[in-house]
Amino acid sequence: MTLLQKVERIKIKRIKECADKFLGQEVNIKGWVRTVRKQKVLAFIEINDGSSLSGIQVVLDSAVPDYDELMEVITTGASLSVTGEVKESPGKNQAVEIHASKIELIGVCDPERYPLQKKRHSFEFLRTIAHLRPRTNTLGAVTRVRNALAFATHLFFQERSFYHIHTPIITASDCEGAGQLFHVSTTDENKKDHFFSRPTYLTVSGQLNGEIYACALSDIYTFGPTFRAENSNTSRHLSEFWMIEPEMAFADLSDNVNLAEAYIRYVVKYALDHCQEDLQLFDRFVSKGLLEMLALVAETEYERITYTEAVDLLKKSKKEFEFPVEWGKDLQAEHERYLTEEYFKKPVTVVDYPKEIKAFYMRANDDGKTVAAMDFLVPRVGELVGGSQREERLDAIEERLVAAGLDKEQYWWYLDLRRYGSVPHSGFGVGFERLVQFVTGMDNIRDVIPFPRYPGHADF
Amino acid sequence: MTLLQKVERIKIKRIKECADKFLGQEVNIKGWVRTVRKQKVLAFIEINDGSSLSGIQVVLDSAVPDYDELMEVITTGASLSVTGEVKESPGKNQAVEIHASKIELIGVCDPERYPLQKKRHSFEFLRTIAHLRPRTNTLGAVTRVRNALAFATHLFFQERSFYHIHTPIITASDCEGAGQLFHVSTTDENKKDHFFSRPTYLTVSGQLNGEIYACALSDIYTFGPTFRAENSNTSRHLSEFWMIEPEMAFADLSDNVNLAEAYIRYVVKYALDHCQEDLQLFDRFVSKGLLEMLALVAETEYERITYTEAVDLLKKSKKEFEFPVEWGKDLQAEHERYLTEEYFKKPVTVVDYPKEIKAFYMRANDDGKTVAAMDFLVPRVGELVGGSQREERLDAIEERLVAAGLDKEQYWWYLDLRRYGSVPHSGFGVGFERLVQFVTGMDNIRDVIPFPRYPGHADF
Repeated sequence: MTLLQKVERIKIKRIKECADKFLGQEVNIKGWVRTVRKQKVLAFIEINDGSSLSGIQVVLDSAVPDYDELMEVITTGASLSVTGEVKESPGKNQAVEIHASKIELIGVCDPERYPLQKKRHSFEFLRTIAHLRPRTNTLGAVTRVRNALAFATHLFFQERSFYHIHTPIITASDCEGAGQLFHVSTTDENKKDHFFSRPTYLTVSGQLNGEIYACALSDIYTFGPTFRAENSNTSRHLSEFWMIEPEMAFADLSDNVNLAEAYIRYVVKYALDHCQEDLQLFDRFVSKGLLEMLALVAETEYERITYTEAVDLLKKSKKEFEFPVEWGKDLQAEHERYLTEEYFKKPVTVVDYPKEIKAFYMRANDDGKTVAAMDFLVPRVGELVGGSQREERLDAIEERLVAAGLDKEQYWWYLDLRRYGSVPHSGFGVGFERLVQFVTGMDNIRDVIPFPRYPGHADF
Repeated sequence: MTLLQKVERIKIKRIKECADKFLGQEVNIKGWVRTVRKQKVLAFIEINDGSSLSGIQVVLDSAVPDYDELMEVITTGASLSVTGEVKESPGKNQAVEIHASKIELIGVCDPERYPLQKKRHSFEFLRTIAHLRPRTNTLGAVTRVRNALAFATHLFFQERSFYHIHTPIITASDCEGAGQLFHVSTTDENKKDHFFSRPTYLTVSGQLNGEIYACALSDIYTFGPTFRAENSNTSRHLSEFWMIEPEMAFADLSDNVNLAEAYIRYVVKYALDHCQEDLQLFDRFVSKGLLEMLALVAETEYERITYTEAVDLLKKSKKEFEFPVEWGKDLQAEHERYLTEEYFKKPVTVVDYPKEIKAFYMRANDDGKTVAAMDFLVPRVGELVGGSQREERLDAIEERLVAAGLDKEQYWWYLDLRRYGSVPHSGFGVGFERLVQFVTGMDNIRDVIPFPRYPGHADF
């Protein structure tokens, strides 16, 4: 073959986005073979480089030297470098295609052994090959949408002058005393001699640490991994998942609801604007009606009701719930779904929950019975956001700590925040994987995180 | 006091940035008292809300009702709401000030007990009150610069279509077999019956998982916490720190060096553009000459040399090093600092290290002696980035695994990446706290992360 000048590699996404600009140009692409169709004088090779869901069609003339040898190794999964001219495509599935002047095999892929054959694989099977599953259409699309949601999260908070804080993963405190903890230790360690001079755990929330920074910098957010050692084998739970936790000083519960609503609207809009092709895949093959639902969430006004109103609505519904509805008991998933899916048919925030069922740090309301808590509910996923105004009054928080059976000594620094220039402050937590599930319509939370950790599973 | 219409709270940073716009306007600010000066007919209160390093001066006329009571509780650290008119300031330290029409005490701060007095505190002391230290000038500035560097990191990679991947924190593999690991377990666990069906650890790097995603989506990056259980009590080491690890498919070592150089230049420029006031503080009080050095890094061409050339330069230097320089031995901090601080006086990348001192996954060079490794060195901090082209050839990586005494079975999926459509790929890791140290000039790594974890310390 003739020596070509080195042409810079272009990602397929860019060629497709600026097809007009590239028409008639020579380009180089690099990627993996998805399919090969061999005809008499031409071969059609679909190449994907992961930059977008759809790949690009490469047309190869059988007159090129080494055609037969090439066609033997160009199999699904093989990696190639293709140089050629971008031309209008006569096919109806694509605007442009590449007429190859040079094709170079980079890495072979034995079709007899490659686990990703051109058939449909179950998500269960794909979990066993988590090192190859991002090469599939659906898991690739999940990855791009997840990326878009993560970046949109940063954009949203940075535009509002919230500072990103990295709260600790290893911690000596167990936050609200709720949830089972993973222990962190070293091999040499024994009960008396800890690496950190005390028993340590993996964090269940960055909130208390986030409050510290809000009480100095006004508005902050965290975006980090959190952990639960519960033996939950469900499609909704992971042992390791990511949480976004904003915290605002000088903010009450209504500011908090405003922020949560604006956040969800922003990231959903961002995904609609930046991941159309991927979302269409989910709409077609994973969750019918997804795009319509996301468009609604991007545009509609959301509802707000109190817990007490929610209980009334549920009682009036005459629905047969598995768990009875009763003031003072927590709302179950079935109740939340009724409110958001059947009654309001849109996102709804429920506020002012009974204090007995909520954490000690939530601010007591004047009625003596409820606290300034909020749960933001969306169709299909249920609770997507949970938050509260925090109890900023020293005497009140001390009382709640004692009532919750927690050790005041351990919370000395948390109490100091109420002692020195205390301010009303509020925040919430978003389970990031729940958010990805909500936007993609994916059923199982294990398929929206690259390497899911759950009981019995820490592979890859 | 008369009932005022509710005025929306404005952050002090915004008022200062758009002073012209706010002149003559009534605004509401909320924040914490830094200093109070009481004169005969006026009081001057410096308020800071953490949105910027400098606060704003509030002028209070003693004619307001409750003046005396107010002045008793307006002490350093107290939180206030101030409503008033923005006026030009006659003082030379600020363009504008606020003439208060209404001041409301939000939270008191007992001056007898408040640990943050208006004197200089040592960083050691401030670590013991990590819940209050972000209220100081220096630690507040660190927080804002750290935020800017984190966001600039996302901007840099997103602009280049790198996808953000969350690699796992809990892992069953120990990456390169290097570094001591923290164990993760549950209380009920015993040697035979693990929560995850096998022993698990805290990750030391997301690289191997990142390679999986690069080999499907072309360009990815991670930004997550990593851990070392070494008993290192130095100002350069943490047990828990954050790493940024990009990985590119179809990329060799020179692409990798290009990316690292562009990344460092980008984030330094971003900090210079967005954190001038904070960086001036560091330049004045923490690290003289910082701004000049950062300006150089933002503009200058960087150097590239091979390890072999570096060894020659060091030998020719006639410097008395503590560790002797010898081909085949790793470069020590003193050698790295000589190269970047004294010889080149700018950032320098050293490539092609002896294979014996580098990890098994680094690509073997044709000379049979070196691997395609890179270390990016900067003045004062030394190694800021370490990376390599990865060995993509199946036979070569198997050989290296065996030579390193590692278990091939455990790396089955890593080998699969070389078996099915293998591609040349490269990546690097940036210690995020080292980067924050580099840009702020802060001496101790424990002061550039909100809640440092190191032997004996997991407080807050």
